[in-house]
Amino acid sequence: MSERTIWAVIMAGGGGTRLWPASRRSNPKQLLALGGTTSLLQDTWARLEGLVHPQHILVVTSHDLAEAVLDQLPALSPSHLLEEPVGRNTLPCVAWAAAEIARRDPHALQVVLPADHVIEPAEAFRDTLRAALHVASERPGTLVTLGIRPTYPATGFGYIEAGRAEEDVLGHEVLPVQRFVEKPDRARAEQFLRSGNYLWNSGAFLWSTETIVAQLQKHAPATWKAVQSADHAQITACYPSLAFESVDVGLMEKAESIVVLPISYLWSDVGSWSALDEVLAPDAQGNRVGGGCHVIAEEASNNVVYGPDGHLVALLGVEGLAVVHTPDATLVCPKDRAQEVRRLVQRLENEEPGRL
Amino acid sequence: MSERTIWAVIMAGGGGTRLWPASRRSNPKQLLALGGTTSLLQDTWARLEGLVHPQHILVVTSHDLAEAVLDQLPALSPSHLLEEPVGRNTLPCVAWAAAEIARRDPHALQVVLPADHVIEPAEAFRDTLRAALHVASERPGTLVTLGIRPTYPATGFGYIEAGRAEEDVLGHEVLPVQRFVEKPDRARAEQFLRSGNYLWNSGAFLWSTETIVAQLQKHAPATWKAVQSADHAQITACYPSLAFESVDVGLMEKAESIVVLPISYLWSDVGSWSALDEVLAPDAQGNRVGGGCHVIAEEASNNVVYGPDGHLVALLGVEGLAVVHTPDATLVCPKDRAQEVRRLVQRLENEEPGRL
Repeated sequence: MSERTIWAVIMAGGGGTRLWPASRRSNPKQLLALGGTTSLLQDTWARLEGLVHPQHILVVTSHDLAEAVLDQLPALSPSHLLEEPVGRNTLPCVAWAAAEIARRDPHALQVVLPADHVIEPAEAFRDTLRAALHVASERPGTLVTLGIRPTYPATGFGYIEAGRAEEDVLGHEVLPVQRFVEKPDRARAEQFLRSGNYLWNSGAFLWSTETIVAQLQKHAPATWKAVQSADHAQITACYPSLAFESVDVGLMEKAESIVVLPISYLWSDVGSWSALDEVLAPDAQGNRVGGGCHVIAEEASNNVVYGPDGHLVALLGVEGLAVVHTPDATLVCPKDRAQEVRRLVQRLENEEPGRL
Repeated sequence: MSERTIWAVIMAGGGGTRLWPASRRSNPKQLLALGGTTSLLQDTWARLEGLVHPQHILVVTSHDLAEAVLDQLPALSPSHLLEEPVGRNTLPCVAWAAAEIARRDPHALQVVLPADHVIEPAEAFRDTLRAALHVASERPGTLVTLGIRPTYPATGFGYIEAGRAEEDVLGHEVLPVQRFVEKPDRARAEQFLRSGNYLWNSGAFLWSTETIVAQLQKHAPATWKAVQSADHAQITACYPSLAFESVDVGLMEKAESIVVLPISYLWSDVGSWSALDEVLAPDAQGNRVGGGCHVIAEEASNNVVYGPDGHLVALLGVEGLAVVHTPDATLVCPKDRAQEVRRLVQRLENEEPGRL
């Protein structure tokens, strides 16, 4: 491993609106400073510091977000930004990035990360990545992923069923992956939690370039063929015709040898406003405030508030609410119904698409 | 009465913050379009149409609000705007306006109205004013006021205890006033409601110029002497030294002959955000929306929302809330605690006076 260069791929193309009204199509979650003053994308970049050289980081995003991504990442060279003309889920993205890396450095190790997760502490995460890269380097043909030890019976994540520990690498358990499981219902999620054998699917992957190229050739030959030696212009032309498929379904579920390293520190996909409970520290009244806004609270506790610097949010006598302010839209809902924001978003699709 | 000119005095000097964050010191309640697209001040002006000629309307306001008042009332001549250098409550305001009218038209009848109430329908109100002016004209020495028939045991209003009907004037009851009562506690308010003899104090007054001048000479001689023949510059100089006193305490409670005309149509002082329940029509889900903002609601009912045109407020799964958006501050509180907004305002006095 010490002889190999580490490359990273940050997948920053998502355009989710689960954090509407703060997240918009033109300003999605990864561009928001949900946890502090830097965006999730910037945090993802910064977490690689000391492990991956900035000149070995590729960022994949949509054409529409390219300018904002370059603005947020001054150390990112435009030649390292892969602009997808349309979103085709994660498999084409991973394949294109793998091809780019193979061309530049065919023996590189690869870390593939979503841009929109909160992970702390960064040092613990880098330790895990080091161990996972060690495995990826030492075991040709093996795909490596990370899994989060569940803390509650989540129904919003995919799960990984893991076998018994194979070995301990650099102080980290390495478990064989038995199967990937789609988002379960509540009863199954509780069963998964009790069994102790299930981990949340992190969406992070590590592999050697040789391994990912071989696996793509085998399991996703059409996609691989399209991106393998294409230049940026050719990619733009062929991308819309690629199969829309996730890495999980298109590759991981088909691969023979996969291992997972469990992690137990803070990992959140910030999937709804209630997730800020995990990400932000509470004040003395249990209110959590993000985005730089100022909150004044009277007999108001356990709320999540998000708004821009300079905005004042006054709460009086309310509990357990999510209150989100943006210059053109305000959201108020109970935190425990925050995942239903999609219902509002669906209505806006028809009634006011300009607000998305 | 038919030979007398009717003058109106609109008291528009208030700077209350009970409707914070929409109402600010520089943009108080009377300047807000709480019920529709025109402000309460503009509505007060418009309600006089057909009864009082625009050239016979005086508006009293603070120096700081003068420009905004002139902007909102294009038909108001600057010579009819009385700018108080400081607020001294309503007695000096009424005395100054009475002196101005006495100088211009010593036989005028006067209608004195707060600028920040919602009253509907306007035609019914004008009918009441006509009857009240008739009484004021026909009974030298009698002060006339209007009282609202209580619909609930309000603790936020002063009350008027009325005697039995003296007579019927133009189809309106005219009752002798026994006494004025300060805001009661809940138990007394319930007793007032049951007794049927109590009315809410409207803060509206009607009298002939001869009567008000005589009453001021008798009960508020120092204030009357100061404003009686002063020009605008002299008023500005002497105003801060005048006693800070309300018409109710400084005049009405001392006067010998007062009658009240009860009214039963919509009258609201919009004393807190919950009062928008009285003022705004509900949508199909029972939400009431003011200020021109657009609301999208999913399983959200019985809320009051106020925000400017162009702003979207999305409510999901919340009930009975007041949600108020302004460009620099947002308020969320249960409607039934809206009167406690003063607690927030008190904190802002110390912590962020720029927000008031």
